[in-house]
Amino acid sequence: MNNTSQRPKVVIVGAGFGGIFAARTLEKKPVDVLLVDANNYHTFTPLLYQVATCALDPSEIAYPIRGIFRDSKNVDCMMGRVVSIDRAARTVTIRVGEREVVESYDYLILSAGSVPTYFGNDHLRANSFELRTLDDAVKIRNHILRQFEQAVWMPPSVQREAMATIVVVGGGPTGLETAGALYELYNHVLGPEFGVDQTLPVRVMLVEKLEELLRPYPDKLSQAALDQLRSLGVEVVLGVSVEEITNEIVRLEDGTEIPTRTVIWTAGVKAAPAAEHLGVELTLGGALPVTDRLSLVEDKRIYAVGDNAYLEDPQGQPYPMLIPVAKQQGILAAKNILREIEGAKRQAFVYHDRGIMATIGRSRAVAWIYNRIPMRGFTAWVAWLFLHLLSLMGFRNKLNVLINWTWNYLTYDRSVRVVLD
Amino acid sequence: MNNTSQRPKVVIVGAGFGGIFAARTLEKKPVDVLLVDANNYHTFTPLLYQVATCALDPSEIAYPIRGIFRDSKNVDCMMGRVVSIDRAARTVTIRVGEREVVESYDYLILSAGSVPTYFGNDHLRANSFELRTLDDAVKIRNHILRQFEQAVWMPPSVQREAMATIVVVGGGPTGLETAGALYELYNHVLGPEFGVDQTLPVRVMLVEKLEELLRPYPDKLSQAALDQLRSLGVEVVLGVSVEEITNEIVRLEDGTEIPTRTVIWTAGVKAAPAAEHLGVELTLGGALPVTDRLSLVEDKRIYAVGDNAYLEDPQGQPYPMLIPVAKQQGILAAKNILREIEGAKRQAFVYHDRGIMATIGRSRAVAWIYNRIPMRGFTAWVAWLFLHLLSLMGFRNKLNVLINWTWNYLTYDRSVRVVLD
Repeated sequence: MNNTSQRPKVVIVGAGFGGIFAARTLEKKPVDVLLVDANNYHTFTPLLYQVATCALDPSEIAYPIRGIFRDSKNVDCMMGRVVSIDRAARTVTIRVGEREVVESYDYLILSAGSVPTYFGNDHLRANSFELRTLDDAVKIRNHILRQFEQAVWMPPSVQREAMATIVVVGGGPTGLETAGALYELYNHVLGPEFGVDQTLPVRVMLVEKLEELLRPYPDKLSQAALDQLRSLGVEVVLGVSVEEITNEIVRLEDGTEIPTRTVIWTAGVKAAPAAEHLGVELTLGGALPVTDRLSLVEDKRIYAVGDNAYLEDPQGQPYPMLIPVAKQQGILAAKNILREIEGAKRQAFVYHDRGIMATIGRSRAVAWIYNRIPMRGFTAWVAWLFLHLLSLMGFRNKLNVLINWTWNYLTYDRSVRVVLD
Repeated sequence: MNNTSQRPKVVIVGAGFGGIFAARTLEKKPVDVLLVDANNYHTFTPLLYQVATCALDPSEIAYPIRGIFRDSKNVDCMMGRVVSIDRAARTVTIRVGEREVVESYDYLILSAGSVPTYFGNDHLRANSFELRTLDDAVKIRNHILRQFEQAVWMPPSVQREAMATIVVVGGGPTGLETAGALYELYNHVLGPEFGVDQTLPVRVMLVEKLEELLRPYPDKLSQAALDQLRSLGVEVVLGVSVEEITNEIVRLEDGTEIPTRTVIWTAGVKAAPAAEHLGVELTLGGALPVTDRLSLVEDKRIYAVGDNAYLEDPQGQPYPMLIPVAKQQGILAAKNILREIEGAKRQAFVYHDRGIMATIGRSRAVAWIYNRIPMRGFTAWVAWLFLHLLSLMGFRNKLNVLINWTWNYLTYDRSVRVVLD
């Protein structure tokens, strides 16, 4: 499988949305592509919270990378971790199992995504769950189910209540969606099965440091999200930050202590450490500053996209760490490489912002279409459903994913409540 | 959830086929049932090999126990491990998470199943994979995929060939089915995706100590199974036992060394250790001798069923360790408990043997219906498919299981090839 052709070689680090769309753009083009990722699958991250809350199976949102590029002879896949990058020699060293493999490149695209950040308070990490990877989601699922299986056999106590209390930190889309889905899991599935209604009070709490949810979006939307979360039953605490997390309590800035054994941290992300191998200056968030052509200021052969890249929009605001940005940048980076090879002029990045949406449990959602049209409630939820089904289908025509998801979602059933390590 | 009623209490240890069918028989009857299992799900073990070979998702053959008994108010479920049984006090102590819970019983049904046995050669275990639990199956799946992801980037060597060689030990139904399915995984899925045809020779080998496969069944069937395995491409070695397994080779009795990093041990099982808590004499295989009423010789309140029980048929042969035996014994034990409570006479166990079947890859199978009608090839395979679909559906009307399975099976696709720890 080693490259012996004389065609330019593009190495893509990371098979998230940026990397996958870059590779797709280079399919069947006169380049050889090597797509490197630590996993052998791409994760459809918008639905991670549905795995964490027992609605979907891990494999339903994980697409084997080799399967995606099965028909593209010029795209090769490697399961490994980048150990170092040598810009002078133009090589990437990758650990594959027990061995190290050195691959040369003519162009490099860094699309390694992001990891959670605790904004300097790294002591908060030890007792927090995260929700960035499939492993994270499975861990949360197993943990929550185990807490219930244990709590139900305990005499009433603060400790027992702590086992049935979940605190979600962060009022962005992930926090909202997770808190909403958890509450429904409790209410519609675990409640009836464990008989918790009578003896075991369940709590889902969402804590956000800022005074409102979904911050960069209009007040109307934030308010709608807040109303819908509260009407569902989620306790929302705004304007207070988290000071300490032990395996028994969460302490807030104002001194409040919430007994809980499950804290899910969704408060922020920073660029994944892949960029550190390059020996160039990074932003505070660990991202690589790129030109509007998406290549590094220092090195035209190296592109960074998505959460790995730092680029400001015409108003001087950095582009948000969102999937559409990663996807559009991945495509442009690939196109710019092809243009460069053909001797054509590279294009500048222009973001096509279609807005955001977040779902808050069944039939509840907020959306801000094209940043002009606000939607809420059932209409927003149907729009969300439709869009995600479309995206899923775009990846692979998986009949069973579609059916399973719709089925679970519509019937209130959670088929995947299996504790499996 | 604790039992405060005055109805007799039946504690069932183990939610395999014996335990589940015992509990089902006691549903809505005038007893309180507590079903204890280390997992929160029942595993449909006949299809474990399909999880190990990427054809099915773990949750598709795992049914949450609480879900099965959701509508039965007299059946309660506990996720925990039995620590001790006090026959005098009639209590069972169960470890649930970090705590120990003591439950009293009026009747106890032991249906804890079986674990692999190495027939005294326990050194063979360290480097073997087993295929008895869902965790086992996922481990095999992850391991095989990892081996391929690594081997494909290595220069040709014995070590590399070892990574693409699998040795299955044991010529029973599980061994046959696993070897067959692995060969098809290689041939139809991994081959094309990794380009192994040209550069990486793949081998699947089956080793059986006896001179024939599927031992207790007629010669005709053994021969048919052998022919079909070989026609598929599996190398079958008969009449030779395994002497050593390291993480680089398998050495056979005759001195042959096969370089491999994947040995799957399906050669035999013995009763699970749950019976050891009772302080009664066990058989060599660790099973509890029971009367034909299925209760212990020493204790009429304790029943053992399935792989946990030792009972001889009218010809003096022990009943085989098969699902139908466990299922029928589970039902009878439950009925005998109900009869005892009503003051009626308990019934003796009569086994209704419907024969066996094993599938050897797509369109290949052998069956021995009612121990009279031999079937082979496509007919047997269709019968197998039909029977397993029926059993699956019997448990739960899961539309997506049916569709996913049939879809994968008919389209040669393996959707679940995701390395997830």
